[in-house]
Amino acid sequence: MAPRTKYDIITEIAKRRGFYWPSFEIYGGMSGFITYGDLGTKLKHNIESLWKEHFIREQGFLELEAPVINPERVFEASGHLENFKEYSSECNQCGESFRADTLIEEKTRLENVESMGGEAIQKLLIEHKIRCPTCGGELMEPTMILTMFKTEIGATGGDVGYARPETAQSMFLNYKRGYLHAREKIPFALAQSSKVMRNEISPRRGMLRLREFTIMELELFFDPEEPECPWFDSVSNEDILLITEEMELEETLEPIRINIGEAVKDELILTEWQGYFMGLSKKFVTALGVDAANHRFRAHLPDERAHYSKQTFDHEVKLETWGWTEVSGCAYRTDFDLKNHMKSSGEDMTVLREDGSRYVPHVVEPSFGLDRLVYIVLESNYERNKKRNVFHFSRDLAPYQVSIYPLVTKDGLPEKAEKIYQDIINAGFWALYDDSGSVGRRYARGDEIGVPLAVVVDYDTVKEGILTIRDRDSLAQVSLQAEYLPRVLDEYYNHVKNFIDLGELLES
Amino acid sequence: MAPRTKYDIITEIAKRRGFYWPSFEIYGGMSGFITYGDLGTKLKHNIESLWKEHFIREQGFLELEAPVINPERVFEASGHLENFKEYSSECNQCGESFRADTLIEEKTRLENVESMGGEAIQKLLIEHKIRCPTCGGELMEPTMILTMFKTEIGATGGDVGYARPETAQSMFLNYKRGYLHAREKIPFALAQSSKVMRNEISPRRGMLRLREFTIMELELFFDPEEPECPWFDSVSNEDILLITEEMELEETLEPIRINIGEAVKDELILTEWQGYFMGLSKKFVTALGVDAANHRFRAHLPDERAHYSKQTFDHEVKLETWGWTEVSGCAYRTDFDLKNHMKSSGEDMTVLREDGSRYVPHVVEPSFGLDRLVYIVLESNYERNKKRNVFHFSRDLAPYQVSIYPLVTKDGLPEKAEKIYQDIINAGFWALYDDSGSVGRRYARGDEIGVPLAVVVDYDTVKEGILTIRDRDSLAQVSLQAEYLPRVLDEYYNHVKNFIDLGELLES
Repeated sequence: MAPRTKYDIITEIAKRRGFYWPSFEIYGGMSGFITYGDLGTKLKHNIESLWKEHFIREQGFLELEAPVINPERVFEASGHLENFKEYSSECNQCGESFRADTLIEEKTRLENVESMGGEAIQKLLIEHKIRCPTCGGELMEPTMILTMFKTEIGATGGDVGYARPETAQSMFLNYKRGYLHAREKIPFALAQSSKVMRNEISPRRGMLRLREFTIMELELFFDPEEPECPWFDSVSNEDILLITEEMELEETLEPIRINIGEAVKDELILTEWQGYFMGLSKKFVTALGVDAANHRFRAHLPDERAHYSKQTFDHEVKLETWGWTEVSGCAYRTDFDLKNHMKSSGEDMTVLREDGSRYVPHVVEPSFGLDRLVYIVLESNYERNKKRNVFHFSRDLAPYQVSIYPLVTKDGLPEKAEKIYQDIINAGFWALYDDSGSVGRRYARGDEIGVPLAVVVDYDTVKEGILTIRDRDSLAQVSLQAEYLPRVLDEYYNHVKNFIDLGELLES
Repeated sequence: MAPRTKYDIITEIAKRRGFYWPSFEIYGGMSGFITYGDLGTKLKHNIESLWKEHFIREQGFLELEAPVINPERVFEASGHLENFKEYSSECNQCGESFRADTLIEEKTRLENVESMGGEAIQKLLIEHKIRCPTCGGELMEPTMILTMFKTEIGATGGDVGYARPETAQSMFLNYKRGYLHAREKIPFALAQSSKVMRNEISPRRGMLRLREFTIMELELFFDPEEPECPWFDSVSNEDILLITEEMELEETLEPIRINIGEAVKDELILTEWQGYFMGLSKKFVTALGVDAANHRFRAHLPDERAHYSKQTFDHEVKLETWGWTEVSGCAYRTDFDLKNHMKSSGEDMTVLREDGSRYVPHVVEPSFGLDRLVYIVLESNYERNKKRNVFHFSRDLAPYQVSIYPLVTKDGLPEKAEKIYQDIINAGFWALYDDSGSVGRRYARGDEIGVPLAVVVDYDTVKEGILTIRDRDSLAQVSLQAEYLPRVLDEYYNHVKNFIDLGELLES
């Protein structure tokens, strides 16, 4: 049996404890769909909240939430109907379809095979004797198929609609309203965390390639003649590992280390806004628990870039099982999208400069896949420690904040513990009550879902009102008068955040 | 011109200020789809958070998030493929389709026409000379059509999928995992706030009937032989207005006033769990700002109930424009769904009692439409006051918590105000900065989006560090040393909540 990878371990815990699991299990499953349980729903929500902190609240950017289903003309204008396609190859025996380029990449270590075109792909399939991974049958000539989910809107079937494969178009469709709500000031941004769907041909790799997932996306609108970002100083000294387009063309895949300020000055990164969001992206993903050393930014080659992009950097983090993995893309979309919608809809999307000239704003877009971040947070915060599984989630991310354990289930301890549990609930915390098995086993259960603090109610609590708090990470145990617990939790979670630990907090 | 209704007024503000507006405006629109702007996205999020407080956190229920797209066999098992249909009548001139029963109800004041069946509906269309509302053409014989969005999953088109019209099936599909994660204890609940889609034939009434919307739904699983709800005491003394099935049959539409405990004892409400969730629903919606007098619970008649329900109460609130309007349904689904999925999937969904007997859990389901709650919150908190529009959102709901206004834009006031704004942002609040126009106009702008507190930075702030805070509701103004502002806001928003006002807080 092959040794279990980190991915296998995380997947097992995720399923057993209730972070997530494959959807439709009782009906045999359907690849590309995931269901979040209690812990996963909460973790996902907390990651999203942290993204809103970093990318919306601090800058005062505007939020948006728009429908998943869009009428066909939206995707005619955006270019998706023409371009959002992949090479599908059907097996002539079992009838299953596969992404032809992915099969070639897996067998040959060639990269970016999609951009070679259908004929080259067909040749490669034959040259490398690639057959159906399911039944070994012969693969037919690949055809380009649209990978958006199609439906009909309304009873008479007159209106074709598609589920959006990204949220960006929603921001462009509503750009004019956003501009008004931003009180006609440029730059401004519209940001959205919402569902998207992609009808992937044969999705694999679980959480990393889903057919239905959540994107956290932001469109920053700016005047190309005034491309300065007011927050650029906050990231310009940040060092990043960078692989430029030029380096990729020369197949130099050892990244350079450069600070963002220089990279923009040297025109390796085309705009300050991209530099700003790349720096912010690194800060955000580091705050999620990814080691600062495990980030890099890789430029897309022209033939790898989406149809709308002038320059795109993928923010990649190093995973144990999957290697360098994209967590976000930062694309310079120029005025491509607004101009297309302006043309298709007839709406004027220009902005007036003080000098009387008019322009269509340019767009920079940082975009995160929230579901794969859930996996990355799990992997990055996981530790196997003295036979225990521990998730070292930050206080912002932990699905539950505190657990309450009566030492024994007699002598009035459960009643006391339940009272304390209720006080904590009333004070607004996410708390767990657990009275089953030894305290050691309960600690282990709490560690395995990353609860930062455990409160033990023992005989001292009943007699003198003193309880014990145990820290998940340091394993330190401190004593406290029960009546102060809500106040201490408030300080710990809402004020000092991740800066000082519980011992320091109680000393101060 | 017809006088503007409250609905018209709210709709106008919603659009102008950025709560929400009809989707796809630049392409001529598409009925049944709404887009939330910055304020609406935040308001919606805050309503959802308050729901989680009331329905999940306080009881320790489990959250879930599952896909919108489901394979066909899910809806075969659930009965939706057979039952989730409506009577559609197409115009033989313009080709547009309409819900035949709705057209009849609008013209005749008949109720629950759908349950009369196709022949009766056809007769009524003729009898009342109902023609196409768009072109006046003749309406053809109504046919029952499935109102779920259909699509194909994967490249070869082998798998038919549908967007779920409710989230409940996701909970039933994942009931077995939920039961394990609840550590095999019954009762437990799975709750989900997530997107659903219904391919409505001709949706009207804006936010009240959408094709894509968010449902906040909870499935409570219990043993029918132990139907007690442990939190029933917390609602049993709550008085409600109730219209029972019997009263409806007798066309007695004047509700009785009864407390929930009695209504359950008298078997007007079939289970304690329904009673509990109805009481909780009233508390929750009252906390959103709906006057305690404007709630009632109306039983569905047998032929109005969904195919899975043994008893359903709609929680209705009285709106100025639309009258009594459903905000939630509380359905007793029995073991209908789990039994169906057990039969279709072959999975054992029974639970073992201590006495060795086995049973399929019964289900009670409280279910809210989040989008219509957004409208209801707006209408319920709206006041036209001395020519100003004010939304009296509670502190939990307000999209922005505080706004900062420099009195004038000179003499160092903007610099001071920006510094204070930044301190507030750093302290974690949602804040607005506004330096445009008179302070009076800025107050009015803030009131119109329901910002509870406004901070004015004037010459005293620059000289002595004293700023003024103005309360949106009482219009009281209090002075404060600028350095204490983050701490006061913390108390106001995170601790005392809606109990005491700013003046009292500062005195204490």
